Amino acid sequence: MPDKRSILIMLDPDAQTSSFDRVVATDAGVDQQFAYANVAPDQVQGLVHGAIFTRGMDDLKRTAIFVGGSDVEAGEKLLARVTETFFGPMRVSVMFDANGANTTAAAAVLAAGKHVELSSASSPTALVLAGTGPVGQRAARLLAREGVAVRLASRSLQRATAAANAINKTIGNSLVTGIETRTDDSLKQALDGVAIVIAAGAAGIRLLATNIRETAADLRVAIDLNAVPPLGIEGIDVTDKAKAIPHAASSTGTIIGYGAIGVGGTKMKIHKAALRSLFESNDKVLDAEAIYQIGKSL
Amino acid sequence: MPDKRSILIMLDPDAQTSSFDRVVATDAGVDQQFAYANVAPDQVQGLVHGAIFTRGMDDLKRTAIFVGGSDVEAGEKLLARVTETFFGPMRVSVMFDANGANTTAAAAVLAAGKHVELSSASSPTALVLAGTGPVGQRAARLLAREGVAVRLASRSLQRATAAANAINKTIGNSLVTGIETRTDDSLKQALDGVAIVIAAGAAGIRLLATNIRETAADLRVAIDLNAVPPLGIEGIDVTDKAKAIPHAASSTGTIIGYGAIGVGGTKMKIHKAALRSLFESNDKVLDAEAIYQIGKSL
Amino acid sequence: MPDKRSILIMLDPDAQTSSFDRVVATDAGVDQQFAYANVAPDQVQGLVHGAIFTRGMDDLKRTAIFVGGSDVEAGEKLLARVTETFFGPMRVSVMFDANGANTTAAAAVLAAGKHVELSSASSPTALVLAGTGPVGQRAARLLAREGVAVRLASRSLQRATAAANAINKTIGNSLVTGIETRTDDSLKQALDGVAIVIAAGAAGIRLLATNIRETAADLRVAIDLNAVPPLGIEGIDVTDKAKAIPHAASSTGTIIGYGAIGVGGTKMKIHKAALRSLFESNDKVLDAEAIYQIGKSL
Repeated sequence: MPDKRSILIMLDPDAQTSSFDRVVATDAGVDQQFAYANVAPDQVQGLVHGAIFTRGMDDLKRTAIFVGGSDVEAGEKLLARVTETFFGPMRVSVMFDANGANTTAAAAVLAAGKHVELSSASSPTALVLAGTGPVGQRAARLLAREGVAVRLASRSLQRATAAANAINKTIGNSLVTGIETRTDDSLKQALDGVAIVIAAGAAGIRLLATNIRETAADLRVAIDLNAVPPLGIEGIDVTDKAKAIPHAASSTGTIIGYGAIGVGGTKMKIHKAALRSLFESNDKVLDAEAIYQIGKSL
Repeated sequence: MPDKRSILIMLDPDAQTSSFDRVVATDAGVDQQFAYANVAPDQVQGLVHGAIFTRGMDDLKRTAIFVGGSDVEAGEKLLARVTETFFGPMRVSVMFDANGANTTAAAAVLAAGKHVELSSASSPTALVLAGTGPVGQRAARLLAREGVAVRLASRSLQRATAAANAINKTIGNSLVTGIETRTDDSLKQALDGVAIVIAAGAAGIRLLATNIRETAADLRVAIDLNAVPPLGIEGIDVTDKAKAIPHAASSTGTIIGYGAIGVGGTKMKIHKAALRSLFESNDKVLDAEAIYQIGKSL
Repeated sequence: MPDKRSILIMLDPDAQTSSFDRVVATDAGVDQQFAYANVAPDQVQGLVHGAIFTRGMDDLKRTAIFVGGSDVEAGEKLLARVTETFFGPMRVSVMFDANGANTTAAAAVLAAGKHVELSSASSPTALVLAGTGPVGQRAARLLAREGVAVRLASRSLQRATAAANAINKTIGNSLVTGIETRTDDSLKQALDGVAIVIAAGAAGIRLLATNIRETAADLRVAIDLNAVPPLGIEGIDVTDKAKAIPHAASSTGTIIGYGAIGVGGTKMKIHKAALRSLFESNDKVLDAEAIYQIGKSL
């Protein structure tokens, strides 16, 4: 008897389900998508019960849940309800990627790791600009888990510190430091000794100008996750992928640059691989760390 | 030329389509599900026209309609609109199973029939506790159609009598009697001479305590359709399936017990078989009786 | 490697997605339907981005968009947003057939063309009754593109003239004339010298009585697109398909008649062929003219 068809129950808090999430699910080979829009937290229990009470234990791994859409905070509430509803072995695998935050952060850190060894031994320092947003926080968390010292930057020191503390508490170390980058001087200071910079800001906001960037003598990789002009890091194009970018302060005269589309290919591969892995067992919870591990194994 | 893909148009009055109904439809082998949430009665005609005006007569049986969701009354209104919209041979098969009421009632009566011969000749008596709800009424109706005398119990004599009369009128006999079971004494009286008891109450309400149950000397089968503790019949576990339950008043010292999950396997088999049978012709209306007949044939 | 599964993103402004559109998409062989209801113009951009940013250029033709539902005006706004969102090669093919207006108009003109040569050389004249509606306007436009002189009739001369002028401006000629047909006399005058009459009115409105019709000595084909009695052209049945209809004023004593269902078979074939053609390249915009050309090639 062939396997039961794979089912992905897609929970989206937006008014319309994400066509992006659905195309990727199709291309990951999911047989059946049950795509729910406008999902409120109190509707989750019933939808999860329908997932866990319909197939026998042996077939439960052929059903999985994906929490997506554009609103990361709303999605996190849905994810919490999903996992609360499980009990004992009565569960299905679930992946969280609202606004692509997990796959984007994972792809950015993987890109950085191709050029700078990520470990506490080699001790590089990373700077995450606009680090209090969902992608920025996840990138900082993944870097800190690898042992990298991270400067998490925001226009507000208070929000930066709060986000940094939350990550340190989650991981159980103190590698992330919140910093404020309101002025050119504070930005130069933030870049001092930094090997990796990741810009995770909102669309159309320039976070780092070339004349500031080029003061960073130790910089080796710059990754800009913004896809809408003006780009977040001046001098890096949206399609750049491991491209040599002129950088006067560097001993080689260049650094490695990635734009949003340059990182996008890896992001899509991670997304599909994570979706496929949902159907290997019925007990996975794929949030940032697990998704990053899947990316590393590709 | 291969058959046209089978299409199930799923009408659900709830805010989100039932993931339960959708997984079962997948596992019954339906090729394409068009799942509609928030369906209002006045939207049914257009949806049915789309079903009957798109494929030629030879292929109409490859399209069918399922009315589901959690609200039995709202679902019944949708079913009425569906069948009203058909005309002459311009119709597709339709199945009604809002809140699983039909498949649950059918599975319960089938379970009872494995242990007590259901017929007017052998004249067993059945008691349906919380019999005015959708599952209770359907179980009483199926039993009475088999010739079994049924006591349909409720806390309100008026509602019990109304439900019993409605069933008798539908079937054209007078085998169902409405009774009130507010007190222990009325419950003992209700159990007197009864061979089958089915508890069809709301989640978490105890309908029958052991000390009352054990006064029923003729009792042979007890079926509890409630899946949430406290269970409806004390002493029966949710997973019991034809299990011997201690019963002092019985000559054998035991009765046969079924819990909600114990009946659930049969319920699921009936649900899938009924869905599959929809695509055998374009003129089926699968409500309680037809679904019970499908269950009997399994 | 097999082709990626074909995806049709269906945009529908109605409260429920059209089951008609979905069955036809199934029978056209579409692998995956993402059916969106209640689509507002400002939701289109995100849905289109999900279509164009997910698959590589080679696979973009395996994703397409269909704008359907019952509201032609609302659908036109969605179509405009869809095509505005495309940029350069970042696009997918799109078909517009809200309320079946394009496929119906195309099927009607094709039916007429089987019996009357449509060209400026042979110079037939056509009359489109209730020509200001979406089907009527499209039929007039397709006829005028073939070089046919068209009288576009309405109860309001102002609306008829506005619709005619709009079509003439689109095509760049002046073959369409708006006329008023409020009275029997104006109808007789409108029919004078006419070879083709198409009735494109709302359901249940009689547009042309037999005694008026039979004054048209040059009439050869009458097509009634109304499917609900009373039919739009007296004497033509909904199922008539190239049927000889008594017509006293004709030299042969008959004209050719088509009813809505008589045209419906061709309409469905065009609809499916147009859907299939969407997946041949990623740059098609299938509106009335392109859909008519597809119909001609069948």
